[in-house]
Order: sequence, then structure tokens, then C-alpha cells
Amino acid sequence: MPAISPLAPARFPDLPPIAGIRLAAYAAGIRYTGRNDMMIAELAPAGTIAGVFTRSQTCGAPVDWCRACLPGGTVRAIVVNSGNANVFTGRAGREVCERTAATAARLLGCEPRQVFISSTGVIGELPPVDRVLDALPQIMPLLAADAWEPAARAIMTTDTFPKGATATATIDGTTVRLNGFAKGSGMIAPDMATMLAYVFTDAALPPAVLQPLLAAANEPSFNSMTVDGDTSTSDTVLLCATGQARHAAVADPDDPRLADFRRALGEVMVDLAQQVARDGEGAEKFVTIEVSGAESDHAARRIGLSIGNSPLVKTAIAAGDANWGRLVMVVGKAGEKVERDRLAISVGGIKIAAEGGPVPGYREGPVAEHMKGREIRIGIDLGLGGGRATVWTCDLTHGYIDINGSYRS
Amino acid sequence: MPAISPLAPARFPDLPPIAGIRLAAYAAGIRYTGRNDMMIAELAPAGTIAGVFTRSQTCGAPVDWCRACLPGGTVRAIVVNSGNANVFTGRAGREVCERTAATAARLLGCEPRQVFISSTGVIGELPPVDRVLDALPQIMPLLAADAWEPAARAIMTTDTFPKGATATATIDGTTVRLNGFAKGSGMIAPDMATMLAYVFTDAALPPAVLQPLLAAANEPSFNSMTVDGDTSTSDTVLLCATGQARHAAVADPDDPRLADFRRALGEVMVDLAQQVARDGEGAEKFVTIEVSGAESDHAARRIGLSIGNSPLVKTAIAAGDANWGRLVMVVGKAGEKVERDRLAISVGGIKIAAEGGPVPGYREGPVAEHMKGREIRIGIDLGLGGGRATVWTCDLTHGYIDINGSYRS
Repeated sequence: MPAISPLAPARFPDLPPIAGIRLAAYAAGIRYTGRNDMMIAELAPAGTIAGVFTRSQTCGAPVDWCRACLPGGTVRAIVVNSGNANVFTGRAGREVCERTAATAARLLGCEPRQVFISSTGVIGELPPVDRVLDALPQIMPLLAADAWEPAARAIMTTDTFPKGATATATIDGTTVRLNGFAKGSGMIAPDMATMLAYVFTDAALPPAVLQPLLAAANEPSFNSMTVDGDTSTSDTVLLCATGQARHAAVADPDDPRLADFRRALGEVMVDLAQQVARDGEGAEKFVTIEVSGAESDHAARRIGLSIGNSPLVKTAIAAGDANWGRLVMVVGKAGEKVERDRLAISVGGIKIAAEGGPVPGYREGPVAEHMKGREIRIGIDLGLGGGRATVWTCDLTHGYIDINGSYRS
Repeated sequence: MPAISPLAPARFPDLPPIAGIRLAAYAAGIRYTGRNDMMIAELAPAGTIAGVFTRSQTCGAPVDWCRACLPGGTVRAIVVNSGNANVFTGRAGREVCERTAATAARLLGCEPRQVFISSTGVIGELPPVDRVLDALPQIMPLLAADAWEPAARAIMTTDTFPKGATATATIDGTTVRLNGFAKGSGMIAPDMATMLAYVFTDAALPPAVLQPLLAAANEPSFNSMTVDGDTSTSDTVLLCATGQARHAAVADPDDPRLADFRRALGEVMVDLAQQVARDGEGAEKFVTIEVSGAESDHAARRIGLSIGNSPLVKTAIAAGDANWGRLVMVVGKAGEKVERDRLAISVGGIKIAAEGGPVPGYREGPVAEHMKGREIRIGIDLGLGGGRATVWTCDLTHGYIDINGSYRS
């Protein structure tokens, strides 16, 4: 059991109940022993759902399952296991999903396609389907409105801490709540890891509203965070709404009455995304990369992710080395327009380079001091346009090699 | 001084003289002490040249200089220093190149634009121009036809061994020779590294023939090799021909009389590219990735490089872990067309997975045995078309973190 990341929050936040949601965790014995490895979130009937998934072309059977169910737009349960990703498991892997959904649907009195499934863990091994099916009738009686932290812990793999976030918003004068939890410690990590996140709200929003809200919030949160640049076969973010808050119907995702909900959703998702980067495998430093002056927001994000994925930048940060030459290199290779002589670079708010060279009188001392800390800030201004993005990552340490270079056991 | 890579060849090959080429190495004191850090290759008048350069948008002043000189098509000297890359050094950096070329041209009696320049080392510091200029009259009297190994050593940065290769070919019945040397230990490494390669021949070929031959040979050699995915600001490959071999004139790059020269050029460049991967920072294992069945050769190369750049694959190889699930993940994220259920994976020639799952009766033992060795072979067949590529890389070890995560000193 690795030590808890030095970048972890002091504790799991207090997630209050949300009307229409109950959760439970259970030790199904899928791979791990002595810990919970299965989570179920149950929604009252009429719950709506939106989802975004990995772009991997070798995605797992549960991702295929969720994609197929999503057009239905309604959800009664989300079933998640850790320890086995059910990826590259062929026809038998698809059957595991079908049987899991059918069994849960029978127990809950709903349609199988209202049961969403995620799996995270080892790739290429068939999950022990009997243990999964046997666990379902055991876990149902445990459902409770306050089991957020056990649920968040049950889906951990190489994570060193559970990740939760909460916020409130008003829709047309009515207060609604958003709770979310996530797991992830690499885009995909050792044998087992992936980025999974689930956000729940009591707002009353149809799938046609939820989906664009989720897609828009996903870009500046989970899609702006990287640990190692390796995209999981199982990445999944689901947003579920129970509809139990008593606000007027909102049918248009661009309705101005959703502005505050949009803000709160963004905050919860950014919080969770940052926690994933803070729990990056072997992470000792949390890095915020702010890119401005790009030709577009998209270009700014690509440059930010290029920095966040560079092993040379990440090893320099691990060493506390104010090695800004590596930033010049990465910006140059990102594939977006850059004019060398307009590029400006700062670290910790201290301007280092501009107009094609170091700024006059640049002294490394104050930057080196900043680099010794746990929270590193990198600023890149391209001087070309109004595009901007913020990207989060962590450093690359011996811990990453230890975690990923140890034989599966 | 790090130990020599365990993947290094037994010794530097014997590079025989090439008519019209002399070389010298010199300790100019640019950054290192107690070693040569400058190299000059002198060509007899009428030498022709071709070049390919980094695609970085923040490339160094010497790359700009070479690009500007290349249309002239002729070369009298290549001057290379290690220790300082002359990158992100603004107008002053451009002047270093101009003054270096002017001084060398005066000493050699040629045009400045016949003097090609490369620099490799720290980014963002102005090279000590006086030391460079003072060294030029000192190095000229040292020029000799057999100084290949000292020249190859003088351009090393974090390289642990000098890299050379040689071949012969016949053009229209006349034997010509090709010698090449290179440096590089990361696409860009610590503070100082980059991929530089120089190939010389006594063939009589005009620039209009050399350039397409070089560009074609570059794709399956240097562009098919990766250490850490970080593209240098200084990458340069130059091909120079003295024209002293007495074969008939060849004016068309597609002339069938060039087939054997093309083969020999490819062999020298692949040999050098493999040596760079074998000297990858911290490398303990040399990895050959063969991709077949892709929609195109280009798609195959992108998938191969995606594998070669994956930190999760490279750490698993370092650990000797037959963790083929990570290969599934990387193939899925490469951005090229993949059909999960047609994908086949082998390691060490042993088939592991096909048709969307592990092959029946797969046992990990023989693959784990292969993974213990120094030379790892990965095979990916996409089952979609005739596209194929071979890519070389090395593993990702604690040594990489040590080399790149230690403070510059």
C-alpha cells in the first residue's frame, strides 16, 4: 500500500445526501482481498443521465455498454468494480456486462439499459462473473444516502486517496446540489487504473440538457489534466440527475437560468480533475500550466497538455530545476502555431524569457525558490491571439517508475 | 560520467577515409572541461549537401542558419559544438552563427553560406562566441582523413558512446563509400542533447538528387526512433557528397543506378538511429516494434511511435513485465484506425492476443522469459491493410529520472 500522496486534500469532503440517490460499497473479491471493490449508486425512478467516454479505439466492454445505453437517457443504477477493467475480453466480456445489467435490473425492477457499468483494473482478463452476480443481491440492502466516501473508496485502484467534491447552485431560484466522486492516478496506470468520475444532482434536467452541459464542462476539467499522457481504455464520466428539486422545467441547455448550475458543475469537475492530478502516480508536486495568447483555446490546451506530458519538463520539476529551456522545446513541438520571438515564459509568476531570449537581468534564484515548493505554476504567453487554457499535471518521479515498473502481483 | 550503455556496440566501427573529407576535434572550452567540444568536417571544393531538420517551431539559430544556406547546395565545412545549443538566444544567437561562418569561410577560402553549423547543449544561454572564433584557426591545422572517432566523440553530450556506421555501394559499376556519425540520447535530453547526424560519401551527386534520397531515408531511420517523445530544437541530419568517385553523372533521384546507394544510405542511417535508441538516457533494453496490417505505412509508424513513447509500456519493459494490456491501451489511443477484434499482439515472436482477446491457451511463461533479455521485440498486426513500419526505442528506467531530474551543474 503506497503512502498517501503529499498533495492530497486534508480529508474527504462532507458530501450531504442528494434526494433520490443511495449508494453502497461491497467486497466482491474480484481481485483484491480485504477491501471493497464494488460500488453501486441507485437513483430513484425518472433519473436522467449524460456521459462522456474515452476516445480509445480499444475501449472496454463496459464503455461499449454505456454508450449503447446512453440514448435511452434514463438511469436507475451505476455499478462499478475495481480490480478488473473487462477490456480486450472479447464476446465473453460483453456477456459479463449484459448479465450484470440484467441481474441488477431484476433486483431494482427496471430495464437493463438503465443500469450503467464501469470497470477498472487489469486489462485482458475476464472478470469473475459469478462473483459479480453473487454480489448484487448482497449489496442492495446496504444502500444508504450517506455512503459517498465508501463508494469513492471502493473504485480506487492505485489511487492513494478517495476523491470527492460538492457544490450548490440555484436554478430559477431553487437551490440544487451537486456531489461528485472520481478515481484515477494515471490516464491509465499500472495494470489497473483509469479515470472514472460520477456526478449526481437533484436538479430536474432532461438528457438533452445534461449532455451538452457535461460535454462543455469536460473540456476545461478532465480533458485539461494529464498524468502520463496514456489514455485509458475505460475513461468514463457520468452526470446523473434525480429531478427531485422543485424548479421549473428547463428544456434548453443554453437557458440563462442554467448559468449558476453550469458554474457549479464546472467547479465540481475541476476539483475532481485536480485531485486526480494530485494523486498522479509518484506525484510529489502539483503543476498548474496557464497558457494565454494562443490562436484559439484549443491551441492553448494542446500546448498546455504538451507541457504536461513532457517527461523532460516533469523530471526537471521533480528535481526543482528551473530548467526553462525545456519549456521552449515543448512549446516548439506541440504542433500549434508559435512565433519564437513573441513567446514569453514565466514560472511562479516570475518572468523568465520574452522576445526570443531571457529577459534582461534574469536571475534564477527566485524561480529556483518557487520550484522547491509543492505547487508549481508555469505561465506561457504566445503573443498571438486571445486563446487561453489551464492544464494540471504532476511531476515525474522515481515513484512513477516504482509503481509502473514493478511486476504485477 | 555515467557508465556506457549496456546496449552499446562492442566498439566504434572502422571508418575508412573518404576522398575529399578531413575532420578534426578540439577542446574549445565552451562548457565542458577536459574534453573536446568542437568538431569540424572539411570538404574539398565542389562538395554538395542535403539536409533535414527539426520541425520544432522554437528551433535554434544554427538550424535557421543551415536552412538558409541549404538552397546553395554546396558545402566546404560543417562546424559543430557541444555544451551550448544556441537556442532561444535571440538576435545575439544569430550573430554567433554569422560570425562563426564568416571566420571559417575566411580560413577556408569559401563563402560563409558553404559553412554549416550545429550546436547541441543547454538552451537559452548565449554561446561564448570568442571561444568559438578563437578555436577555428586552432582546429584547422588538425584536419585529418582518419579523425572520424574523435569527431564523433566531440559532439557527444549525455551520450555514453560515440556512434558511427559505414557502408559501400556501387553506382553504375563504381564503388562509393558512405561514412556517418551521430549523437543523441534523447530527442532532447537533460539540458543538452539533441539528435545530430552527418553522413559523408565520395559519390558525385548533385543537391537535387541528394535531398530526396536523404528525405526518403530519414523516415524509416531517424523518424522511426524515439527515446522520450520530446522533439529537440536542434535536430539536424546532413548528407554531404564530395564527388570524388569516378562514376557517370546521375541527375535523377529515381535513376535505377542509385538503387544500391539508396540501400547503403538506408543501412547507415538505420544503424545510427538504432545506436541513438541504444544510448537512450537510462536505457537497459533495446526495443524493436514491428507494426503490420495498418491502413498505410504512415499509420503503422504513428502506432509504433505511440508504443515507443508510452511511459507505461516503457516502464513495464524495464521491469520485464509481459504486460500486454498496456499495448492494447496504446494502440487504441494512437489516433489511427484500429478494429479491436482484428488486432493481434505478439512479444518475442510469441502470439499473445488476437480476435479481441488472449489467444486460447496463452501462457505468460515464455513471454516473461523473453522480457528478461536486453533485446525486446513487439509485434502488432492490425489486420486492416498492407501498411507496415518498424520503430526502435528503449525502456524507461530510474536512470532516466536520475539523468533528467538532477540539477544542471
